Amino acid sequence: MPRRRTTWDTVAIVGVGLIGGSIGLALRERRLAKHVVGVGRNTARLAVAKRRGALTSTTTQLSRGVADAQLTVVCTPVARIVADVRAVADVCPAGALITDVGSTKQEIVAALDGRLDREVQFVGGHPLAGSEKTGAAQARADLFDGRVVVLTPTRRSGREDVEALSSFWSAIGAQVRTMSADAHDRVLAVTSHLPHVLAAVLSSVVRCDELPLTATGWADTTRIAAGDPEMWTQILSSNRGRVVQALARFQERLDAVRKNLEDEDAAALARFLSQAKRNRDALGS
Amino acid sequence: MPRRRTTWDTVAIVGVGLIGGSIGLALRERRLAKHVVGVGRNTARLAVAKRRGALTSTTTQLSRGVADAQLTVVCTPVARIVADVRAVADVCPAGALITDVGSTKQEIVAALDGRLDREVQFVGGHPLAGSEKTGAAQARADLFDGRVVVLTPTRRSGREDVEALSSFWSAIGAQVRTMSADAHDRVLAVTSHLPHVLAAVLSSVVRCDELPLTATGWADTTRIAAGDPEMWTQILSSNRGRVVQALARFQERLDAVRKNLEDEDAAALARFLSQAKRNRDALGS
Repeated sequence: MPRRRTTWDTVAIVGVGLIGGSIGLALRERRLAKHVVGVGRNTARLAVAKRRGALTSTTTQLSRGVADAQLTVVCTPVARIVADVRAVADVCPAGALITDVGSTKQEIVAALDGRLDREVQFVGGHPLAGSEKTGAAQARADLFDGRVVVLTPTRRSGREDVEALSSFWSAIGAQVRTMSADAHDRVLAVTSHLPHVLAAVLSSVVRCDELPLTATGWADTTRIAAGDPEMWTQILSSNRGRVVQALARFQERLDAVRKNLEDEDAAALARFLSQAKRNRDALGS
Repeated sequence: MPRRRTTWDTVAIVGVGLIGGSIGLALRERRLAKHVVGVGRNTARLAVAKRRGALTSTTTQLSRGVADAQLTVVCTPVARIVADVRAVADVCPAGALITDVGSTKQEIVAALDGRLDREVQFVGGHPLAGSEKTGAAQARADLFDGRVVVLTPTRRSGREDVEALSSFWSAIGAQVRTMSADAHDRVLAVTSHLPHVLAAVLSSVVRCDELPLTATGWADTTRIAAGDPEMWTQILSSNRGRVVQALARFQERLDAVRKNLEDEDAAALARFLSQAKRNRDALGS
């Protein structure tokens, strides 16, 4: 089955929430796929995504949903991805490509790379896009515009597959980067999982009587703590070791700042805040 | 000099940055003061605020600036407020009211309450509004809309003065709360100063090569780290003891979460994330 670089005949999306729904909307709006089949367990949620124009058809039967798909994107929660990719591999056409959008990669890639029985390929992926809001009702065709998508191929991955997947994400607006699953998880522990833990701890230590005296600073800093607890339990658990390392790195610096305060060392405090500002300014708003 | 509840003849603003400029814009736009005099050391910055319509006149001479002011709002950095209020008290009209907008209150109120020589009154204040962006060019007439302003009167404060100040802030859109300077600083250590330290530490631990793999979560969580380092050094220093206590409260909870991760206790992790989400959801976006 030849893969076309920029347009696809049939793409299947397994798990149609914010990410899956947004992929569907982007594909449909840019006319990149003739058929976008949504596969899920909840017909009401599938109906929402179809009504919004993200899908051309829906089914609760995986074998029907992926039967004609040259590409299947597995968008289910992290803890289910390995089983779902295996299930897709058992029923999709020979030569088909499977990818995922899981926030952690090492466990998933280790379990799947070179371990699928049939003539199908899996290449891991992770779009760094999302929101504390979830569900297909929140999906947006421009969710991936200018966002980074990390692909985590291995030496077993076919170059053509990686290129096809890279074109897929580029076509819906993303900037594609390629790195090992290990490197991905190490960096994301610091840039994504650590902030989530901190936001949640900050949110949890504020008492009800203190909440009225929060302002935009607290609101910004804790926003992601509104994310789905079940989803984040899975993400943090599946990258446990590296998250603990990131926490240690954070705690060491926090201890130093606390000591600056206790020592009334205003000069050290100012140096620290200036360096933090330089890092933050490098990103832009 | 009688104080009118809703409109003022002359209000002086000492230090015309984001907050001072926004007060001026709000007063002028709502026609709450005939004259709004800006006092500062930098004529170029004063000119920006005047050009934007926040001020009716400007001066670098404090004695000229506050000569006719029934109300003077001191909007200088925290470390300068005590000296600036004393200087205003020496030259403003008898019977005049002075307030400030400093982010910490205990040190300032302790230094000024009942300690001004002449027949002028000081009541501390703190609008919980602001931004990592600073300067009069960023000022907005609606900066205080729906924001909380805390007033910190003492038993020495005149009821009429507190009411006048309360009307002043209400008239420009704020919700006024009254509490002791001590209570203010204890709560703000948790809701404002702690988030600032965490955002700055998070920003400072991310390395350059990791920065491209940050997404909206990191951006939100670190946004306030772009704030003015000098200003924040002063705020943190002047509330040192309570910030250290808030850090201890945070670190204790963070240690517990880290232990949940190390122990692979997914159930405890999920409970913690759910509680954090409930707290965050209570605030709204």
